[in-house]
Amino acid sequence: MPNTTTVFLEEHNLDGFLFVGDSICDADMYYLTRFLAGDRFAALAQDGTTILVSSMEAGRARKESTAAKVLSTSEYHLLEKLKSGMAADEAYAQALVQMLRDHSVGRLGVPPSFPAGIFRHLIKYFEVDVLSSPVSRQREIKTDAEVAAIECAQRACERAMRRAVELIGASEPRGGILLRDGEPLTSERVKSAIEISLLEDGCEAEQTIVAGGRQAADPHMTGTGPLEADSPIVIDIFPRSKARRYYADMTRTVLRGEASPEVREMYRAVLLAQDRGLAAVSAGVSGRAVHEQVCQAFSEMGYREREGSGFIHSTGHGVGLQVHEKPSLSEVGGELVAGHVVTVEPGLYYPEIGGVRLEDLAVVAQGGCRNLTRFNRELILNR
Amino acid sequence: MPNTTTVFLEEHNLDGFLFVGDSICDADMYYLTRFLAGDRFAALAQDGTTILVSSMEAGRARKESTAAKVLSTSEYHLLEKLKSGMAADEAYAQALVQMLRDHSVGRLGVPPSFPAGIFRHLIKYFEVDVLSSPVSRQREIKTDAEVAAIECAQRACERAMRRAVELIGASEPRGGILLRDGEPLTSERVKSAIEISLLEDGCEAEQTIVAGGRQAADPHMTGTGPLEADSPIVIDIFPRSKARRYYADMTRTVLRGEASPEVREMYRAVLLAQDRGLAAVSAGVSGRAVHEQVCQAFSEMGYREREGSGFIHSTGHGVGLQVHEKPSLSEVGGELVAGHVVTVEPGLYYPEIGGVRLEDLAVVAQGGCRNLTRFNRELILNR
Repeated sequence: MPNTTTVFLEEHNLDGFLFVGDSICDADMYYLTRFLAGDRFAALAQDGTTILVSSMEAGRARKESTAAKVLSTSEYHLLEKLKSGMAADEAYAQALVQMLRDHSVGRLGVPPSFPAGIFRHLIKYFEVDVLSSPVSRQREIKTDAEVAAIECAQRACERAMRRAVELIGASEPRGGILLRDGEPLTSERVKSAIEISLLEDGCEAEQTIVAGGRQAADPHMTGTGPLEADSPIVIDIFPRSKARRYYADMTRTVLRGEASPEVREMYRAVLLAQDRGLAAVSAGVSGRAVHEQVCQAFSEMGYREREGSGFIHSTGHGVGLQVHEKPSLSEVGGELVAGHVVTVEPGLYYPEIGGVRLEDLAVVAQGGCRNLTRFNRELILNR
Repeated sequence: MPNTTTVFLEEHNLDGFLFVGDSICDADMYYLTRFLAGDRFAALAQDGTTILVSSMEAGRARKESTAAKVLSTSEYHLLEKLKSGMAADEAYAQALVQMLRDHSVGRLGVPPSFPAGIFRHLIKYFEVDVLSSPVSRQREIKTDAEVAAIECAQRACERAMRRAVELIGASEPRGGILLRDGEPLTSERVKSAIEISLLEDGCEAEQTIVAGGRQAADPHMTGTGPLEADSPIVIDIFPRSKARRYYADMTRTVLRGEASPEVREMYRAVLLAQDRGLAAVSAGVSGRAVHEQVCQAFSEMGYREREGSGFIHSTGHGVGLQVHEKPSLSEVGGELVAGHVVTVEPGLYYPEIGGVRLEDLAVVAQGGCRNLTRFNRELILNR
């Protein structure tokens, strides 16, 4: 870790790279420190990493963080500054100024997400460059341990998907909707089964999608109310391991009842487009080229994007400590590198029909990729 | 909502106040738009609120958001800018510049958390002031609907606490630890019971604390491994309603087995200090005065903070869309106002003994407060 950062600092002629934020929301800060905190702290990357936390967090930080040095805001008299009536951001910036000087910082780098309220104070004391975070760049390429953590979340994702698919498969199509024990089977009920399964596996998920009918025509609509019979149901689960913080991501589309020829054809097209995308993923290939393969596959099968329907999103994205991170498999996707973990998730969306999407997760390798997903792709669920 | 913002804009002679971030991490953005998204978007507060989202999110935003206007980045040709090779932040800033000009913005306000990577571009085109967010200020004072949402999460919190307390109460102290069905009862097992209960109530929780023995001497240590008999166990649960996004927060300390006179005395002191704190909470009183009451209560009972032990944290904090928000009940706490929702959570911590903390949640009112917590305060659990 410090090696990459050290090289970056030398390249940009910087004495340090500073992050300020909380490590629940800022994945770079978690990656750099392995210290999970919902309250703001600072992390200075130099040859080693120094973190500055509140005095109450210092003990925990010393036990849990991988940072070389843990400093407390009390060492920089933050409370006294606040008590003297200084504004919160200024007092915090003053503590940072002292800390940075103690670490011989003259030229400083900060990431684009760095808070403007502190930035405007620091530029009075240091030369500050806003630069793409070297930690984000390092995070893109996963170590074996990181891939293992993602796979662990992916297994949990698959068990949750199994529960959802079984619940829908065991339902009874009647009067246009799905019934379970005589009650309408709702998106909410399926999501609840998914969440309980994830929790049993030490994972959590936000915004899980179980969307049927026309709701699924909008790729991010999470779904609500009774699920329709004879209509595709998109199930998109992206859990995070609570302990290891890595995400997985998978989508399947299922249908209980009778599928129209139109929906069968859509499903087949998405399946073939996904195969084409997965076959294209390889180190040295650009994310753009993979996306173009998928677009071309759809086009060859007669599906063209127009007026907000058809294949209306990109082919995929990186997955790691964030569920959406670089690289991008899209029109602007750069070169893929061995160790990238990416989704391949083509879909088709029509307001009058609904949506079909299939999403697998794969590790980029030399000459191809290793698909981390172990779950069949079947549209129609029969008992 | 727009009224407060409009007044703020006039006071500061601004044409708009701009937020850029995601509304999972940025509570102001969620409050302002009620649009929940993990990907970055922009929100411009003027007389009404305008949001700028990716084209894929535009449909969902129009359905779910309370914003007066939803614009898509495609209207500002973001993709074309990226395809032309422009850096991501610059392309995004250029789209924002156009959007802001279309909304007659010359002088702009941004919050301290605004990303520096975009800030540095915007200052080339506009007069930009970094100012405390008017939305954060508005969020401090809860409406009746917000208090109801917090109470709903608090009821879920209490049901989860009940499960945890029952699990510990039904355990058997043997050989210095607690046994359940012949197996050691662990922090992890109790946390799992808490999380399942919360999930059943539509809530989620991160970093739940179930810490016994010396682990509890560090207020933020979440706890791990077998729970000790005859030793206080701190249980701190701060769930968030998944649908409504509001938090609750409660801590209890329990013990199974025999309590030493020292621990009984600590518990009694924390209980009395909490009562003193709750009695002091009232509109017009400062958070600092409440904290001083609690400190004085401890002092009178012979407990003084020294060398990182004793009462080592502040008395409380605001709770709402964030679990830690303003106001603060601490040495630097300002005036309390009716509608503030705050915790009152004194505690005592000694490395050789462990910790005792009690935390209730209350709404500030004229002449006092309404305690939202309905859970007894008993240290010793007997079957």
